[in-house]
Amino acid sequence: MLTLSQAEKMIAGAKAQAAVLDTKMNIAIVDAGANLLAFARMDGAWLGSLDISIKKAKTARFFDMNTGSIGELAQPGGPLYNIEHSNGGLISFPGGIPIKNAEGEVIGAIGVSGSTVENDHAVAEAGVKILDAELVA
Amino acid sequence: MLTLSQAEKMIAGAKAQAAVLDTKMNIAIVDAGANLLAFARMDGAWLGSLDISIKKAKTARFFDMNTGSIGELAQPGGPLYNIEHSNGGLISFPGGIPIKNAEGEVIGAIGVSGSTVENDHAVAEAGVKILDAELVA
Amino acid sequence: MLTLSQAEKMIAGAKAQAAVLDTKMNIAIVDAGANLLAFARMDGAWLGSLDISIKKAKTARFFDMNTGSIGELAQPGGPLYNIEHSNGGLISFPGGIPIKNAEGEVIGAIGVSGSTVENDHAVAEAGVKILDAELVA
Amino acid sequence: MLTLSQAEKMIAGAKAQAAVLDTKMNIAIVDAGANLLAFARMDGAWLGSLDISIKKAKTARFFDMNTGSIGELAQPGGPLYNIEHSNGGLISFPGGIPIKNAEGEVIGAIGVSGSTVENDHAVAEAGVKILDAELVA
Repeated sequence: MLTLSQAEKMIAGAKAQAAVLDTKMNIAIVDAGANLLAFARMDGAWLGSLDISIKKAKTARFFDMNTGSIGELAQPGGPLYNIEHSNGGLISFPGGIPIKNAEGEVIGAIGVSGSTVENDHAVAEAGVKILDAELVA
Repeated sequence: MLTLSQAEKMIAGAKAQAAVLDTKMNIAIVDAGANLLAFARMDGAWLGSLDISIKKAKTARFFDMNTGSIGELAQPGGPLYNIEHSNGGLISFPGGIPIKNAEGEVIGAIGVSGSTVENDHAVAEAGVKILDAELVA
Repeated sequence: MLTLSQAEKMIAGAKAQAAVLDTKMNIAIVDAGANLLAFARMDGAWLGSLDISIKKAKTARFFDMNTGSIGELAQPGGPLYNIEHSNGGLISFPGGIPIKNAEGEVIGAIGVSGSTVENDHAVAEAGVKILDAELVA
Repeated sequence: MLTLSQAEKMIAGAKAQAAVLDTKMNIAIVDAGANLLAFARMDGAWLGSLDISIKKAKTARFFDMNTGSIGELAQPGGPLYNIEHSNGGLISFPGGIPIKNAEGEVIGAIGVSGSTVENDHAVAEAGVKILDAELVA
């Protein structure tokens, strides 16, 4: 089970990476039930990225894969075309990553929004790595 | 902070430009928090453009850029494909423009809908110019 | 048919009455189709009253009566108990008044929110009187 | 303007008070535009309180008063009966408190949910006091 303490460390790690990239991010963490566990909007971050970060985290947990992978399948003509209409709205571009425990089970997800999708993904990944490091230690 | 008086002058300016272009527009102004500040639907304007004008204004403030710029990134295969599913529905074609104060800070946005996207954008721009002129004076 | 010009005069009259009462109001006008025609949020008015003013105007037009009259019927044990769950949310306390033309036909409604329900109703009434005066003239 | 750093200190203070009261809380902070700034759900806290805490914070900012004060006016027969149907859902029992700056202006709100309304309010108040102490210092 993902704890609030772990989520807060992940957000701190994500914020640090956001600062390295000179970006301002919305960062959301959901638990195994895809329910919001922790959230932070950095000063000056896009207001519209608030909802996107939460939707990315939910989307990543809903399907246990990176949001960008869903987006590849959701293009016109693709097998999951317009899947974004489900679940009250999905976001299917990069920035959402499942969170796994030491046994590889998905216990939640992180969603990041506020810059390019490359930066969003990199900041989400930085958050995930914080937990991975803690689980190994 | 954007005042109602400023918003009303912007709507008046936008309406004047809409008349010049022989169009009938819905015009919405939101504040820095993306909350509606003022709205006007010109007689005979499309009913469906009511919601579009408000969503354009919100979208422009959500991401501090013209709605058309978001649309370029949101095409199939693009990095923000289907971003419109966030925030209760975005509109990503032209007609929404952020409103800035004399220091260049975004203090709200205007959204216009009722004609071609070129006309919508031109009318929104006319509204923004009213405020710019006032801020300079 | 209610025109934008008439709606704007009604809003101006309502704002004047709001100032007399030393209140800050959200003022919404809907047309015969219960669709928003014009809106103004006075500087410093409650943010939550934005949606309430629009819902009051819609509610008054939905049933062609003052919102407070609906509220009397919507109390626990009353015939319309919890009618507020319909139509995406109604507001059934005072502040919404139907707008009638010279023939007495309902052509829209005004909704006001931002103070006590007595003040809200008084400001809505001031808006309606502006139109009545114009129709007589 | 309320900063993320201030919001995080408020959440830390609220969590400390929640522990003192032996409760598990959802804690939400919104900014002046009623948009989510930071959120934390303590381990084991009620899942349904997630949304309630956010709605309490929004409600307190929407009307610049404690949520419990709105609830007193929203009882059957009261002037604001069923106001909760507005704004996508309000929560009108205690646990939401406006956040003010040193000049007394409302710059956001805190919402807490997870225990009795007395405890919810006490934990929200603990969060507000953290900011008050910082503003004085």
